[in-house]
Amino acid sequence: MTFDSKAWLAEAGALIGDAHVLAEEHGDDLTSYTQDWGGKFQGRALAVVRPGNTTEVQAIVKLAARTKVALVPQGGNTGLCGGSTPDDGSRQVVLQLGRLNRVREIDTENNTATVEAGCILQAVQEQAASVDRLFPLSLGAEGSCQIGGNIATNAGGVQVLRYGNTRDLVLGLEVVLPNGELLDVLRGLRKDNTGYDLKQLFIGSEGTLGIITAATVKLYPAPRSKVVAFAGMKSIAQAVCLLAAMRHQLGERFTAFELLSAPAVDLVHCYFPDTPALLEANWPWYVLMEAADGGSDEALREAMQDALMSCLENGALEDVLLASNLAQGNALWMLRENITHAQKMDGGNIKHDISLPISAIPAFVDNALLMLDNAFPGARPIVYGHLGDGNLHFNIAAAADVDPGHWQLRTGEVNKAIYDIVSARRGSISAEHGIGQLKRHELAHYKTAMELDIMHRIKAALDPQGLMNPGKVLQ
Amino acid sequence: MTFDSKAWLAEAGALIGDAHVLAEEHGDDLTSYTQDWGGKFQGRALAVVRPGNTTEVQAIVKLAARTKVALVPQGGNTGLCGGSTPDDGSRQVVLQLGRLNRVREIDTENNTATVEAGCILQAVQEQAASVDRLFPLSLGAEGSCQIGGNIATNAGGVQVLRYGNTRDLVLGLEVVLPNGELLDVLRGLRKDNTGYDLKQLFIGSEGTLGIITAATVKLYPAPRSKVVAFAGMKSIAQAVCLLAAMRHQLGERFTAFELLSAPAVDLVHCYFPDTPALLEANWPWYVLMEAADGGSDEALREAMQDALMSCLENGALEDVLLASNLAQGNALWMLRENITHAQKMDGGNIKHDISLPISAIPAFVDNALLMLDNAFPGARPIVYGHLGDGNLHFNIAAAADVDPGHWQLRTGEVNKAIYDIVSARRGSISAEHGIGQLKRHELAHYKTAMELDIMHRIKAALDPQGLMNPGKVLQ
Repeated sequence: MTFDSKAWLAEAGALIGDAHVLAEEHGDDLTSYTQDWGGKFQGRALAVVRPGNTTEVQAIVKLAARTKVALVPQGGNTGLCGGSTPDDGSRQVVLQLGRLNRVREIDTENNTATVEAGCILQAVQEQAASVDRLFPLSLGAEGSCQIGGNIATNAGGVQVLRYGNTRDLVLGLEVVLPNGELLDVLRGLRKDNTGYDLKQLFIGSEGTLGIITAATVKLYPAPRSKVVAFAGMKSIAQAVCLLAAMRHQLGERFTAFELLSAPAVDLVHCYFPDTPALLEANWPWYVLMEAADGGSDEALREAMQDALMSCLENGALEDVLLASNLAQGNALWMLRENITHAQKMDGGNIKHDISLPISAIPAFVDNALLMLDNAFPGARPIVYGHLGDGNLHFNIAAAADVDPGHWQLRTGEVNKAIYDIVSARRGSISAEHGIGQLKRHELAHYKTAMELDIMHRIKAALDPQGLMNPGKVLQ
Repeated sequence: MTFDSKAWLAEAGALIGDAHVLAEEHGDDLTSYTQDWGGKFQGRALAVVRPGNTTEVQAIVKLAARTKVALVPQGGNTGLCGGSTPDDGSRQVVLQLGRLNRVREIDTENNTATVEAGCILQAVQEQAASVDRLFPLSLGAEGSCQIGGNIATNAGGVQVLRYGNTRDLVLGLEVVLPNGELLDVLRGLRKDNTGYDLKQLFIGSEGTLGIITAATVKLYPAPRSKVVAFAGMKSIAQAVCLLAAMRHQLGERFTAFELLSAPAVDLVHCYFPDTPALLEANWPWYVLMEAADGGSDEALREAMQDALMSCLENGALEDVLLASNLAQGNALWMLRENITHAQKMDGGNIKHDISLPISAIPAFVDNALLMLDNAFPGARPIVYGHLGDGNLHFNIAAAADVDPGHWQLRTGEVNKAIYDIVSARRGSISAEHGIGQLKRHELAHYKTAMELDIMHRIKAALDPQGLMNPGKVLQ
């Protein structure tokens, strides 16, 4: 029996309204749904369906299950690994969650928010702020990414040191299973030891086990004070000492510890020439630090200053600037954020989102830089990242005399060289960006057979027809 | 073919040494392994095997898989739900992990410890303290419970408010799967988004999916200062306000928020008459609070005092005592810890380890007390617990004129009445103690069919022969 796409589209339209079923057959332009944000992946879709509530999601999933149509769940489509774009076969359907964008409840006494999958991350942050609470997940794409996608990919960001990854912020989930049934574990409990913690399966599984439609997430007291500092140092080993010393003194008030290499800072100065020089001398490595607290600005500032002074005395840093106000603090963060933009302006580079035990990072970086020098002479490493979480963005730009397009062709070769060093030190080849389409072949190489076997068993147990985001994560 | 127990014991002895295979057939007394700590469950075992390392665990599990012998993994055997005791059929084998008690590695730069399952919790705490780090899991049984059991049951304790449950403290696991193969996800990474987070399956699954043999856990900077306070108030609603206000001001320095009802405090005064009166007047509810920090005692004390004063002014508490030194702080904690002992001395009571959204607790307690008054007149509720985590120990002692033994016979009736109210408010019938044998029938009643279905699918995918701790958690 051949597949009748017209009938499928009509049936979907009857379920959720024709206006919410987009298709090339109807003359719709699907590009913004079928192409990923970075322009690396371009698929084709039978349709893009945009259900308006959980019941409509269930109806679509049941239709898909009955007709054996694969679904590609999609939030803000801001991922970096092609996890939310369809393949090029024109038979997959993009299930876009953007219309499920209600904040169902904010419970200030329980410090929780129950939000639908399609809520923009920034909207969740703003809703929390409006009741004097903090939703701490924060990342570059927050103005357009959706919380459902953040959860499905276990997003990281700049406040993981203090508040954890997205996984650590999720208390409950509502999930439409591959058969269209609803799994309602949308509880706002901090403790619940009644059997297997099923929500954990779906967090970070990139839509391959079911469709997250809502979540209950943790909120925190909104900090009342914040201070930012910028330090220069001779080595990453010194930065690792600094991290330990600062955490010891500031405890969990210490919210961010971002490493920047001199070439990363230089690149920003090159493309954003208004960026001020921050320290009197140049250092090979810099660290951006932030602390936040519920007490007064003065008390926090004093604690930060005391901690920095003792680090300076103990040789855990060489020079430091404590931002004198919020504007100067924001300027420091701007420098950090502009690395990504400067890299984009500089032309293609080969990106690695890796993590390692923090103790292994200094030797890893030494190793990897030496390897690059030998195997890819002239290539320019632009290293930065969330050192406090053991997560580096270890990106390699083309040598000055090499065309960035040509350099990109060597991606596989560079990846293998880097990932082999990561793997030897028991690190991860994807710290916060996930696997998607981009890294699924590498996954097979860097996971043990036993891990892959169990992942496949879980997949088969939950999605026996294999219709949930096929071709992502698993092969 | 009949089962040849003699041959089985001989084969096990050949694998791990005869001295480590205990059996009634050999004249060994197995009572301490086959009876639970509370004396509620008494089983019989074919044998108690005590392998000395992961390879030996694998060998035993392979033997069990081949001969279809069910295994009951056991740590310190301190659980409250009979999760680590065998059934009474003399065909199950207790797999006791106590000989796997090495601390494999402490990495102070990465703030992690890699420990074997049989390490006593207190030993892990002490090892961490010896390198100026904190392993924050802390609970009554810490002198005898083992970290493998803590992980398998996702133990809670008194520092969850600040550091989370055991789940939140585990970065990596080594697990022997039901077929005897090793799943090595013993990584010390704070970020790793490379597919399904398999370790989550085993945490809290009470040994029904595999045998945890080692773990990499998070360490924290050891706090340098600590202050304890004790407040009286008119209502739980007031305590909920106090919690929010204190967290706002002290942020994550705020480490504990324990609720005590007047009858709980009175019971301690009755059985421990040396316990000092703490506040001038009596109040219906009390709260024990603790804050800890990396800075000076004076600074923390001042911050706590400021916060408490503003709460007193705003009516979030009625009276408060700030412990003037460590000894007084410890005396306050002793009062809290002695509730359990006083209850034991007072005779049998019906225990409930429940959790709710914090916002739902005042109304829940009102409801439940009213229900008790009507349905079980004279019964004495002894309510206390980790209010900061939404977790109450809602225990009901017999009426003064009722024999505790007779009262215990009404457990099912009392449980149903309490759990129905918990369930209506989307709470949990087991916040931190787990399910084990004790609550598995109630699980079937209070979980949705869909949740149970997925739990069974996971179980079948990982343990198709059903040999891992059968009769626990799932039916």
